[in-house]
Amino acid sequence: MLILGIDPGSGSTGYGVVESRSGRLRALAHGTIVPPPGLLFLDRLPHIAAAVETLVREVAPDGAAVEDVFHARNSRVALQLGHVRGAALLPLLRAGVPVHEYSPRLVKKAVTGSGAAEKEQVRRMVRLLLRLGDAPLALDASDALAVAICHAHSSPFPGFCEAAARA
Amino acid sequence: MLILGIDPGSGSTGYGVVESRSGRLRALAHGTIVPPPGLLFLDRLPHIAAAVETLVREVAPDGAAVEDVFHARNSRVALQLGHVRGAALLPLLRAGVPVHEYSPRLVKKAVTGSGAAEKEQVRRMVRLLLRLGDAPLALDASDALAVAICHAHSSPFPGFCEAAARA
Repeated sequence: MLILGIDPGSGSTGYGVVESRSGRLRALAHGTIVPPPGLLFLDRLPHIAAAVETLVREVAPDGAAVEDVFHARNSRVALQLGHVRGAALLPLLRAGVPVHEYSPRLVKKAVTGSGAAEKEQVRRMVRLLLRLGDAPLALDASDALAVAICHAHSSPFPGFCEAAARA
Repeated sequence: MLILGIDPGSGSTGYGVVESRSGRLRALAHGTIVPPPGLLFLDRLPHIAAAVETLVREVAPDGAAVEDVFHARNSRVALQLGHVRGAALLPLLRAGVPVHEYSPRLVKKAVTGSGAAEKEQVRRMVRLLLRLGDAPLALDASDALAVAICHAHSSPFPGFCEAAARA
């Protein structure tokens, strides 16, 4: 099973492709989508959508995973994040790739054992679980791999992540 | 000049096509995009994007106009509106159609003379300005036509709307 994790952000959108085979996980690719500097906000959206479209075409993922968002610092930030999330998820939705959403707490818990883990702690565990060694790993890409891992764990046993988060 | 006005909303997205020729305005089409009932929120986005994509292909607008949004009732509402706005504007941005944003106050002022006009008052003036008579006109479609009218007025003389809003 190929899972595309996405971490949409106004500045940088992380992505990570995780292969899950017989419970064994492997990172096939990860990185960040960063629109060219100097673009107006709306003009960043087609750049993000085109990059995700390319990923969908080249990876042909069986499913996608993304952190759910319910709150933001303020409505201005939420509005911007909504645009970016819409642009990033649209190519997946239009290609019929199922998009699964997991709460940030649930993702952290599934990867580190603690729902309150810091981003750096998540990155350390992502490195370990996917045997990435010391190769460079952007924080946004790490977050994208983390949500893909959470989906991989929850997928064969749908209750896994939810149970882990409650534990 | 053909202008596509768009009024993105979580439930219904209004659209209106206005032709501006020698300062004379004519409505070529208007309506609302309403995803089938029962769809999950994310699954509404491809429906909206596909409908706007069809409009872009069939109308080949010279420009698009949309109300700018800075505030929302809360961050949850803002996040949803951001997704819908991203999905609705993406086909325009990807097709290279220039997207122009106008504040709600500016649109109301340009159409009715008052920046504090009610939606019903805007609809009455849209009917008059575009000679639509008593034919049915959805409120969201009226708002889309209104922002297209604002763009038509401001376009040959970029300062028009801004000056009208300040007056």
